[in-house]
Amino acid sequence: MHLPVGFRFAGVVSGIKSRVGARDVTLIVSDAPCVAAGVYTTNQIVAAPVVVSRSRTPSSTIRGVVVNSGNANACTGTRGYQDAVEMTKHAANAIDPSGKLAPEQFVVMSTGIIGRFLPMEKIKSGISAAAKELAYSEQAFLNACDGILTTDIARKTAERKFPLQNKETHIVGMCKGAGMIGPKMATMLAIIITDAPLEPTQAQRLLQAAANKSFNCIRVEGHMSTNDTLIMLAAHPTANLPELDPASELEFAKNLDEMAIELAKKIPDDGEGATHLIEIRIHGANTDADAEAVARSVALSNLVKTAITGGDPNWGRIVSAAGYAGVPIRPEHTDLKINGHPLFERGEPLAFEAAVVSQSIKGRKLTEIDLRVGLGPGTATHWTTDLNTEYVRFNSEYST
Amino acid sequence: MHLPVGFRFAGVVSGIKSRVGARDVTLIVSDAPCVAAGVYTTNQIVAAPVVVSRSRTPSSTIRGVVVNSGNANACTGTRGYQDAVEMTKHAANAIDPSGKLAPEQFVVMSTGIIGRFLPMEKIKSGISAAAKELAYSEQAFLNACDGILTTDIARKTAERKFPLQNKETHIVGMCKGAGMIGPKMATMLAIIITDAPLEPTQAQRLLQAAANKSFNCIRVEGHMSTNDTLIMLAAHPTANLPELDPASELEFAKNLDEMAIELAKKIPDDGEGATHLIEIRIHGANTDADAEAVARSVALSNLVKTAITGGDPNWGRIVSAAGYAGVPIRPEHTDLKINGHPLFERGEPLAFEAAVVSQSIKGRKLTEIDLRVGLGPGTATHWTTDLNTEYVRFNSEYST
Repeated sequence: MHLPVGFRFAGVVSGIKSRVGARDVTLIVSDAPCVAAGVYTTNQIVAAPVVVSRSRTPSSTIRGVVVNSGNANACTGTRGYQDAVEMTKHAANAIDPSGKLAPEQFVVMSTGIIGRFLPMEKIKSGISAAAKELAYSEQAFLNACDGILTTDIARKTAERKFPLQNKETHIVGMCKGAGMIGPKMATMLAIIITDAPLEPTQAQRLLQAAANKSFNCIRVEGHMSTNDTLIMLAAHPTANLPELDPASELEFAKNLDEMAIELAKKIPDDGEGATHLIEIRIHGANTDADAEAVARSVALSNLVKTAITGGDPNWGRIVSAAGYAGVPIRPEHTDLKINGHPLFERGEPLAFEAAVVSQSIKGRKLTEIDLRVGLGPGTATHWTTDLNTEYVRFNSEYST
Repeated sequence: MHLPVGFRFAGVVSGIKSRVGARDVTLIVSDAPCVAAGVYTTNQIVAAPVVVSRSRTPSSTIRGVVVNSGNANACTGTRGYQDAVEMTKHAANAIDPSGKLAPEQFVVMSTGIIGRFLPMEKIKSGISAAAKELAYSEQAFLNACDGILTTDIARKTAERKFPLQNKETHIVGMCKGAGMIGPKMATMLAIIITDAPLEPTQAQRLLQAAANKSFNCIRVEGHMSTNDTLIMLAAHPTANLPELDPASELEFAKNLDEMAIELAKKIPDDGEGATHLIEIRIHGANTDADAEAVARSVALSNLVKTAITGGDPNWGRIVSAAGYAGVPIRPEHTDLKINGHPLFERGEPLAFEAAVVSQSIKGRKLTEIDLRVGLGPGTATHWTTDLNTEYVRFNSEYST
C-alpha cells in the first residue's frame, strides 16, 4: 500500500473484546497538526464519542484519532461523555507526555454493544500501548484496521494513487461495518487519510459529498446506529503545499468518491450472514432524491431480501416495494430486470425462464436489480444484502 | 356466532391453491342492496381487484363480495383488470341468472402470488359452486373465512353484540394476513359485516377511523401490499331501520374499533414464523402522529425483532430505533421498559437482572415495550412480530 506520508498507525489488544488476541484499540496520529473533517450519524440518540468528535471537526489542528471496538459507549449518559473525553486526553498525553498536546486535538470513535460503560482501565492501557507501537508501515496500518472491527469477517481497506498538481497523491481508507448498516450511515466507522492539501471547509464539503454517494447508500437492515462516524484526515495547505486549484479539486473529489464507494460496498458485502450483495439501480424517477427513496424502499424490504436469499425471481416484491416508497412512480411505464433478464415491462408481466433467472441469482454473490419507474431523469444506486437464517441466528444471540 | 341477518356466506374449493381441499373462493351476499365502505392499500402499484373495488365504494347498492385466494391478480396489466371485472360479472350472474344484478353491485378481492394471471376457468366454476352453497349459518361463515386465507395458520374472526337504539346489533369480521404485513395496511384482506343501519359516507368515515387504530398499526416486515382491502357491508337505514343518532353512532364506533383491533392483532400474532407478538406503546411524543412514527421505526427494526426472538433484552436497539424515526424525541428524558422491567431511565442505563428480563420474553408469546420519549402528549400503540429463521426460510422459498 502507498500510505500518505506524515501519519503513523497502531492497533493493539487491550482486552475489551472477549476473543483472545483481537485488536480493539486503534490510534492514528499525524506528525503535525492536520485538517480533519467528519460526517456523523443523524440519529438523535448519539453515542458519547460522536458528541465529542462532532464538536471538534472540521478543524486544522487535529493530531489524531483514537478508536475502541467492543463497546459503543452509547446510551451511557454523563459518565459515558466523560469517558469519551478521557480517551482523547489519555491519547494526547500518551503521544506527548510533556503535556503540549490538547485533548481537543483528538477525535474519538467507539463501536460495539450499546448501553454498557467503557472498561476505562483496559482502554487507557491499550492507548498507552498503541502510542508506543505507532509506525509508518503497512503492517501498522493493517493493525489499525483490525482494531476498529467488530463482527466483520473481513478487514476493509481501499486506496487510490494519482497525480495532483504534478505531485503523486494518496488516499487510503479503512472501515468497519457488519450489523446495523442502515439509512444514512450505519454502525459504520470509517477513516480516510490523504496527503492532498485541503482546507478544513473544503475537506468537510468533499467528505460530505463522497458520503452521500457511498456510505449513505448502503443498508443492511435500515437501523441507523448511534455511533456512525466517518473522519477524513488531510495534509494542511500551509504544510509546504499549495492550495488545490479547481481542476485538481475535481480530480481529488473523483478519486475520493470512487474510493469511498469501493470501501462502502465492502460493508454489505460482509454483512452479518450475507450471501448476496444486492446492487439496486433506480432510473426514471422525477429526481435523484425520489430515486433514492425508491432504492431505499427496495433495499429495506425483507421480502425482497429473502427472495434473493432463495434465488427466487419473485419480482412482484420489488415492484410493490417501489410502489410504497412514498414518491411518484408511473406503474404503466415501469420496467424491471434482474441480472439483465427482463421480467416486467410497461406494467405487464413478461414470460421468462424462472430456472434461468434463479440460477443467475444462485450462481454468484452479486445480484443486480434495474428498475425504471417511467417518469424523469432521477437515478440512484444503493447496495444491500440478502436476509438469511444466519443473520437472524447471529442477531438473536448478540448480547445475552 | 351471532351473524347479522340478511347476509349469506360460502367458501369453496376451486383448485387455485395446490393444497388438496383448500378453500379458495369466497362469496358473501346481501339479500338486499346494502351499504359498502372500503379502505384500500396506498401502494401506487395496485392489484386489479383494488382498482375495481375502489371505484365501487362507498355505495348503497352493493349486493356482495367475491374473493379468491392463491393468486393476487397484481401486476397483471390490462388482462388482470378484465379478469377482476369478469369475476364480479360472473358473481352477479351466478346469484341471479335472470341478469337483474349489475357487476357493479359486487366488490372483488384477490390475494396470493403477484404477477400471474388468474386461472379464470377454475375461478368461475368456484363462483358458481359458491353461489349454490350460500347459506346463513355459522358453518357457511367459517367456510367463507377459510376461503380468503393464504399462508395463515389460523382462521381469523371476531364478533361484537350490543344494543343500539333498543335493538340488538351485531358486527362480525374475518381477515387474513400472514406475509407482507406492512405500513398502512398489508397483504391483508378483511371483511366486516353489520346489521347496524349506516349511510354510505358514515360507514366510510367510521371504517377509515377504525382502520387507523387497527389494521394500519400492524406490521410484520413493512412491506405494503398491492392488494390490501378492508370492506364493510352494512344494512341501509331505509331497510326499515331508523338512522343512528349521535350517541348510537359513538357506541357503534367504539364496538367497531375494538373489534377491528382484535381482528388486526390476530395478523401479526399469526405472522409467518412468528413466535412473539410485540406490542409497542409509545408515550410522550409531541403528537400522536410523531408517536406513530416512533412506533413504526421500532416495529420495523430487524435488530429489535431478532433480539425479541432470542429473548435478548438488548434495549439499545429499541432506543436507537426511536432516535432515527425522523421525529423529535428528548434523549435525556427517554425511559424504556420491557415487560414492565425498567431498563433505561432519563437517558441513563439502569442496572437490571438480564436473566429475569430474558425469561420474561422467552416465557410467553406477548412482549410489551413501553417507551417514553419525554416531550408531549402524543401516544401510539403498534403490533409486530419477532423475526426468526422460520420467517426467512418461509420467505426464501415462496414462489419457486
